[in-house]
Amino acid sequence: MKFATLKNGSRDGALVLVSRDLQHCLPVPAIAVTLQAALDNWDALAPQLEHAYAALNAGQATGAQPFDETRCHSPLPRAYQWADGSAYINHVELVRKARNAEVPASFYTDPLMYQGGSDSFIGPRDPVFALSEEWGIDLEAEVAVITGDVAMGASIAEAASAIRLVMLVNDVSLRNLIPGELAKGFGFFQSKAASAFSPVAVTPDELGADWSDSKLHLPLLVELSGRPFGKPNAGEDMTFNFAQLVAHAAKTRELAAGTIVGSGTVSNKQGNLFGSSIENGGVGYCCLAEVRMYETIEHGAPKTPFLKFGDTVRIEMRDAQGTSIFGRIEQTVVNYAGADHGSRRG
Amino acid sequence: MKFATLKNGSRDGALVLVSRDLQHCLPVPAIAVTLQAALDNWDALAPQLEHAYAALNAGQATGAQPFDETRCHSPLPRAYQWADGSAYINHVELVRKARNAEVPASFYTDPLMYQGGSDSFIGPRDPVFALSEEWGIDLEAEVAVITGDVAMGASIAEAASAIRLVMLVNDVSLRNLIPGELAKGFGFFQSKAASAFSPVAVTPDELGADWSDSKLHLPLLVELSGRPFGKPNAGEDMTFNFAQLVAHAAKTRELAAGTIVGSGTVSNKQGNLFGSSIENGGVGYCCLAEVRMYETIEHGAPKTPFLKFGDTVRIEMRDAQGTSIFGRIEQTVVNYAGADHGSRRG
Repeated sequence: MKFATLKNGSRDGALVLVSRDLQHCLPVPAIAVTLQAALDNWDALAPQLEHAYAALNAGQATGAQPFDETRCHSPLPRAYQWADGSAYINHVELVRKARNAEVPASFYTDPLMYQGGSDSFIGPRDPVFALSEEWGIDLEAEVAVITGDVAMGASIAEAASAIRLVMLVNDVSLRNLIPGELAKGFGFFQSKAASAFSPVAVTPDELGADWSDSKLHLPLLVELSGRPFGKPNAGEDMTFNFAQLVAHAAKTRELAAGTIVGSGTVSNKQGNLFGSSIENGGVGYCCLAEVRMYETIEHGAPKTPFLKFGDTVRIEMRDAQGTSIFGRIEQTVVNYAGADHGSRRG
Repeated sequence: MKFATLKNGSRDGALVLVSRDLQHCLPVPAIAVTLQAALDNWDALAPQLEHAYAALNAGQATGAQPFDETRCHSPLPRAYQWADGSAYINHVELVRKARNAEVPASFYTDPLMYQGGSDSFIGPRDPVFALSEEWGIDLEAEVAVITGDVAMGASIAEAASAIRLVMLVNDVSLRNLIPGELAKGFGFFQSKAASAFSPVAVTPDELGADWSDSKLHLPLLVELSGRPFGKPNAGEDMTFNFAQLVAHAAKTRELAAGTIVGSGTVSNKQGNLFGSSIENGGVGYCCLAEVRMYETIEHGAPKTPFLKFGDTVRIEMRDAQGTSIFGRIEQTVVNYAGADHGSRRG
């Protein structure tokens, strides 16, 4: 199944089923008004949702309407948990190499994960707001899953079976604030802005063979201000799969339905190289910090600037036939001061 | 106004108004079904809630019933954000002194704050579940506020005016997991278990003169397994008040209604001492880590163990007349393995 949340002026928006080809959608208020409501009672509601989804794809659903990605909020406009891992160790290796430090051995067996803010995500076509370019605004293109309820101490197999939906993320990061925040020892807090998710979230079975071993084996496509920037395969060089990440999150506490767990910035190792640009024949990057680290390693200092007001970010994933699976995240960086902030509820 | 959430088998429970003396309560489904619903539309609903609250306190509310704290969930059984500060620098000074380290000067001007899990709080009378005593299970008795919507970059005055409710917290911490988690640089993640909040959350005006300068000027009463353990005044030695903490949380992103911001463990400095037990005439402690640090400073090593299965924690606050303001957090530490986990929804 594919799901989206249409803006309707409320904080949680309206749940719709989206056809496999992203051409049509179907409100399902008689089954679940919001995506959280569907997740809260998934086992009971999934059969009804499956039935409606089959009718939608067959062109036989009463009430179906054209699907317009630009009307979407993030699938969960607000969530009870957003826990983001850092599963692509190549990204961590690059960070360390750029400052001549070793990666601790434990990083290959014990995932990095931080608790992010989940009270007010931005929509996939909403502006990325910031009050200053000096914050070092960066994208982080990632894959994320939404879980059902998970018991404390769940096994990796139990965690795998709790994965309900898959989607894409732009985990907006404020790079110049990170060193100060991490030095305080309490995590990223002020250095992570509100994240945006893809218009559409899909059940793992929609992904067919591209979803295996709790990983999504397709290129993640990133454009910056209209130019190709990254296309690494999200299934490669992922040291911890989503089942491992969910189990890690649940080690000391239960996870409630609607918990979002992220992969961290997708990053491919590319043989002996730590990364290389699309222009140079590589798969490029999913964040600016990574190209800057690569520049630091090669040239002694970063050259590529962070995002400026007016820059745009596009994140998408296509199947083997070239069809968009999750719709497109497309955002412009905008100065929060003086901007219209109310549009996000739509 | 005073609010509580009664368990009713749902994930969010049922909102009730609670009389000032905590003797009666009144369901208000025609106004707001849940506390989150009231917070989502506070300005419009507050007058109706005030009207019902006045009738309840006058003994004239139709549908009023006896209030039973033991039926309560945390006021927000799940929330969209839980951001916990560390505003009592004495606590931080003790941590540092126990390991012969200095407190960075910036800690007196830049609050410490971490993002906590908010997807599944435990109720005020629910067990504190853990899978192992070896995790170093500790309480942290704190004060917390619930905010309305807060703009990015809000001033301290704007932050102060966004404080909707005040309550108490037991921020359960897993001390033996903290060093490993903090060493990874991504925050506390696995070292913070699910938190519990007091049965009742109150509007600041209920606190009269005890709420001033965005601080709560009353002793926070803590008992461990039936013995007095702490009674520090939450209004003393609070380096950052709640308005400053909320503004800190909002520096780089909006906060959505229902955001919970905590004070960190309450800790009084007591003259030249860093803390002293109630038995020795002091105001005692709000967490076991603090007495252990004090023991380390005095004797070279900690003596007091962390919580064991079967230990109980009580946290409460009384007004000048001795009346409980928020009801009582009272929890027993229980092994999650083999326990009945379903009771929490009631």
